[in-house]
Amino acid sequence: MTRLEQQMAFLLEIDKLKQVHRRTKLLSGERYENSAEHTWHIALATLVLAEHSNTPIDAVKVMKMLLVHDLVEIDAGDTPAYGDQGDKTALEAAAAERIFGLLPEDQRDAFIALWREFESRETPASLFANSVDRLFPPIQNIHNQGGSWLDFAVNRPRADARLSPIGDGSQPLWQLVSAILDDAQNKGYIQPGN
Amino acid sequence: MTRLEQQMAFLLEIDKLKQVHRRTKLLSGERYENSAEHTWHIALATLVLAEHSNTPIDAVKVMKMLLVHDLVEIDAGDTPAYGDQGDKTALEAAAAERIFGLLPEDQRDAFIALWREFESRETPASLFANSVDRLFPPIQNIHNQGGSWLDFAVNRPRADARLSPIGDGSQPLWQLVSAILDDAQNKGYIQPGN
Repeated sequence: MTRLEQQMAFLLEIDKLKQVHRRTKLLSGERYENSAEHTWHIALATLVLAEHSNTPIDAVKVMKMLLVHDLVEIDAGDTPAYGDQGDKTALEAAAAERIFGLLPEDQRDAFIALWREFESRETPASLFANSVDRLFPPIQNIHNQGGSWLDFAVNRPRADARLSPIGDGSQPLWQLVSAILDDAQNKGYIQPGN
Repeated sequence: MTRLEQQMAFLLEIDKLKQVHRRTKLLSGERYENSAEHTWHIALATLVLAEHSNTPIDAVKVMKMLLVHDLVEIDAGDTPAYGDQGDKTALEAAAAERIFGLLPEDQRDAFIALWREFESRETPASLFANSVDRLFPPIQNIHNQGGSWLDFAVNRPRADARLSPIGDGSQPLWQLVSAILDDAQNKGYIQPGN
């Protein structure tokens, strides 16, 4: 296969991300969101919000990281924020090998490195990417009468555990989400917990 | 409003792009594609395919251009490749003012400049962005028994007029699409025309 043939095989395979459904709905409430459109939203959000990173970051690297971060879901499925997390490490690693493995070697290696860095939550770029990735679900839930918080009977400690890492990438974004969680608790969408 | 409040107003408004439907279906044929997931696909395709540009390009600029290029559709609707093109210039300009106008001024100006450059089809970055934007619909149609070609009774001269600009950005991508059009004509999805 030529490089272009390998690249096109990858690009056709990843069309399937448009059929991976998440547990949160569009802001309009019309339907559940899919992982491809979610990825578009947060890649663009990175361009807009990069100035709020705790540490100066390379926004382009974060964008690239986000554009590929969910591709393993094509094989491993979406991992709901509040559902059974299970241990998908092996499944996702196999998915990364298979899907990125469709590409020419140099691109495969570069994309796997971006995906691993996203998962690591260790570098400033990864911390900010994870902040932006977690930013919209609470906003979607507050617009949709509780959404996945009610579906999974989430209490405040659980929501805080899931969302407070936003602050590791951006304190202003975590303050924004923290206020949404207060509102959600007042509205009964989230139970206080013990 | 603070900068962050303006930025969030923009980011919530553009969620609506997920509800703008195109005339082409997913490769699986399951449903029509929306403009947000299409944008994710071509932004990532840019990273993968940039080496096939006729002229060396700044792939990051193309990616940024693509991430915002369809936002005017929130007000102006999708313009089908083969449907009534009408003259949406005024409508799209007003949409750009309204939607990008939600952002702080510096970001508004930067995004409007990216959108205008995409529309201009004058710079190498714009030519390649337009190539990638037009690449997938013929592939979707050939996977979906003719798709929008049959819906709009497209003939070969019309398909060539729509798709040959792919060659202005990338000759290898146009060769690939040109072969798909030959195949589509053999299968009766596209009429020969006069």
